[in-house]
Amino acid sequence: MTEKKNVVFIVVDGLADRPVSSLGGLTPLEAASKPGIDKLAEIGICGILDIISPGVPPGSDVAHLSLFGYDPYVVYRGRGGLEALGAGMNIGVDDVAFRANFASVGEDMKILDRRAGRFLPEGDKLADSLNGYRSKLFPDVEVIVKHTTEHRCVVVLKGPGLSHMVSDTDPHREGNLIQATPLDSTPESKKTASVVNEFTQYSYDVLRDHPLNVEREKKGLPPANILLLRGAGRLPCMPSLRELYGLKAACIAANALVRGVCKAAGMDAIEVKGVTGSFDTDTNSMGRAALKLLSEYDLVFLHIKGTDSASHDGDLEKKIFMIEEKADKLVSLLLDSIDLDRTYLVLTADHTTPVSVKDHTGDPVPVVIAGPGVRSDDVKRFSERDCAKGGLGRIQARFLMPILIDYLGLSKKYGA
Amino acid sequence: MTEKKNVVFIVVDGLADRPVSSLGGLTPLEAASKPGIDKLAEIGICGILDIISPGVPPGSDVAHLSLFGYDPYVVYRGRGGLEALGAGMNIGVDDVAFRANFASVGEDMKILDRRAGRFLPEGDKLADSLNGYRSKLFPDVEVIVKHTTEHRCVVVLKGPGLSHMVSDTDPHREGNLIQATPLDSTPESKKTASVVNEFTQYSYDVLRDHPLNVEREKKGLPPANILLLRGAGRLPCMPSLRELYGLKAACIAANALVRGVCKAAGMDAIEVKGVTGSFDTDTNSMGRAALKLLSEYDLVFLHIKGTDSASHDGDLEKKIFMIEEKADKLVSLLLDSIDLDRTYLVLTADHTTPVSVKDHTGDPVPVVIAGPGVRSDDVKRFSERDCAKGGLGRIQARFLMPILIDYLGLSKKYGA
Repeated sequence: MTEKKNVVFIVVDGLADRPVSSLGGLTPLEAASKPGIDKLAEIGICGILDIISPGVPPGSDVAHLSLFGYDPYVVYRGRGGLEALGAGMNIGVDDVAFRANFASVGEDMKILDRRAGRFLPEGDKLADSLNGYRSKLFPDVEVIVKHTTEHRCVVVLKGPGLSHMVSDTDPHREGNLIQATPLDSTPESKKTASVVNEFTQYSYDVLRDHPLNVEREKKGLPPANILLLRGAGRLPCMPSLRELYGLKAACIAANALVRGVCKAAGMDAIEVKGVTGSFDTDTNSMGRAALKLLSEYDLVFLHIKGTDSASHDGDLEKKIFMIEEKADKLVSLLLDSIDLDRTYLVLTADHTTPVSVKDHTGDPVPVVIAGPGVRSDDVKRFSERDCAKGGLGRIQARFLMPILIDYLGLSKKYGA
Repeated sequence: MTEKKNVVFIVVDGLADRPVSSLGGLTPLEAASKPGIDKLAEIGICGILDIISPGVPPGSDVAHLSLFGYDPYVVYRGRGGLEALGAGMNIGVDDVAFRANFASVGEDMKILDRRAGRFLPEGDKLADSLNGYRSKLFPDVEVIVKHTTEHRCVVVLKGPGLSHMVSDTDPHREGNLIQATPLDSTPESKKTASVVNEFTQYSYDVLRDHPLNVEREKKGLPPANILLLRGAGRLPCMPSLRELYGLKAACIAANALVRGVCKAAGMDAIEVKGVTGSFDTDTNSMGRAALKLLSEYDLVFLHIKGTDSASHDGDLEKKIFMIEEKADKLVSLLLDSIDLDRTYLVLTADHTTPVSVKDHTGDPVPVVIAGPGVRSDDVKRFSERDCAKGGLGRIQARFLMPILIDYLGLSKKYGA
């Protein structure tokens, strides 16, 4: 009997880029020294992926849905639900969730600081003081509040007849608090907008005089006296990878949004000490944990976030550091340890984030698949331009997962 | 006036493969000596085709629908109808057909031999004894039975209000006979399942005491005392190539299922002595017959089956033999005789069947088109990896036929 095959699937967030003049016209990926990743390209089959379609810049949530084989135009229903999942909250398929910031407002509801100073050790307690609120207007709606990091929370509205088609109360810059409005004409959206506005006022009423805020003001710190909501979303409506393909999958992803997408796809989220969503993430620990998980899972998904953060900051050096010291070290560790006769190693990005643009763009991303039976090609280096000459050609990202499923022998024949 | 152009379109079944370690990492197509086929690649334009979409393994029926330009997700309604067409039966668009096996069951309906010994010279007569049965439950349904090869039959239910959404009575391994059940909640499926079960019982009642079975048992042979039905299907719902494009097409395809798809597309099925669905097929006769047919037809489709059978058997040597001695000889003969200034020669596969997997996979297949006006590329050898670098790029198989139609000058301009 042949051993069961499995996959390690690595996404390096925002890895792909455009040529940079200070690099002599090379991209960061072309300029970086990355012997492990280039070795992977040499032994594998390469190509480029359109995450959505050419020229469409995807958010990280939509991008990962696509990389996991889903059509985001069909399944995606906003960011909030995925954030709630990523934060470990209990969210039902009909609930509506929001990202939220603790902010400082004056009595005229003018926003003085959108992040209430950003550093907020009181976050857990302040969130608890709002948690479990039951709407006065719609007593069938309960509000769950969970503090995550710094000034950030996730807010879930639980109850019947809600919709994610409501606007943000967060103006996304200093200015006035905005009333949430329904974004379509359904009674569900109207109801949800009403609850959001009611809860926003409630958050101010409770937080304004909260003892921890009184203390903050005494220390000269901005009070965290209101919650600003944005990114309304429900869970994507989709079957898990196990339901679709019988695939048992785990993820190691410190970023809450990406972890939320992983969980929505039915992956077990594994916590690994030292793995963070930042530049200090320990990819050695990540790699070693992945190797252990392979005995139990068909697919282990690994996510490195720092490359994207560096790109958003326009920090070329930091991006190259993340490629050389984090991504390449991870790939080298895995190449040293996995058995390529039974394990596939896949590397790609979720989108292009050029350091010159400091935001996501719609350029395709490079991809490589190494492992048993792949039709390896002539590509010797992993980069945006080298991979464009690879054997996979240019395909949509949502076809990557079916290709892996087929390599694993889990695909179903269509026809006879 | 220019001479009318035409096409010879060759499909070598299951030709595409994956790298094989005993071939030093080459695929059978890369390892085989095939000067004719490589010459074709050199003068033509090459590419790779996704038969359905990346990673989806197609059955041969669905694959050929796609290669003939149809979207199987729209037109395909199961295998049975195509088998019936391939067997030369008269089947209407509303009839439901099944593949069937003569099998041996005990009195407890336990299946003792799914193929009743496989060799069944009495097949025609036994089928005749069941043919023309009229349902007692639904007297508007008549059952037509035709013996094809060995233990195999095709069964057609003719009558109003039938459906192909019914399960098999064949358990696909020794075990108990299964009752057919409706696969959806329509009255049509319920009616069809009832007729199938009634007819199955009838086949046992008639065959059990059939004199030919009494004789078989006397000789110690397993009696062919029941028909097991599977693969319910109606004809695909689709216009012919002539209706769509004004294309007059013929096929030489010994495999009944593939011939069924050809006929569903409106091709005339031409019998050629020596052409079989097996390893002994005479591709010289096939080639000479094709050359003659070109005077009468716009497109002549040729099918070689043995490569796929060898792959299903995991028989690498036999696969390479079929490539070198059958497919390559056919292409060489055609290249020697056709006028490439007016005739296109097209070669591809209907799917990948790796000898290592022994079943269809979702890998793309190589394709080449040679003939007047094609933008020939740098590809010099016909293989999975060489063709991936070709001028056609990577496209869906269902776009191949429109490309040929356009080369023939039969396409219609869209817009003004």
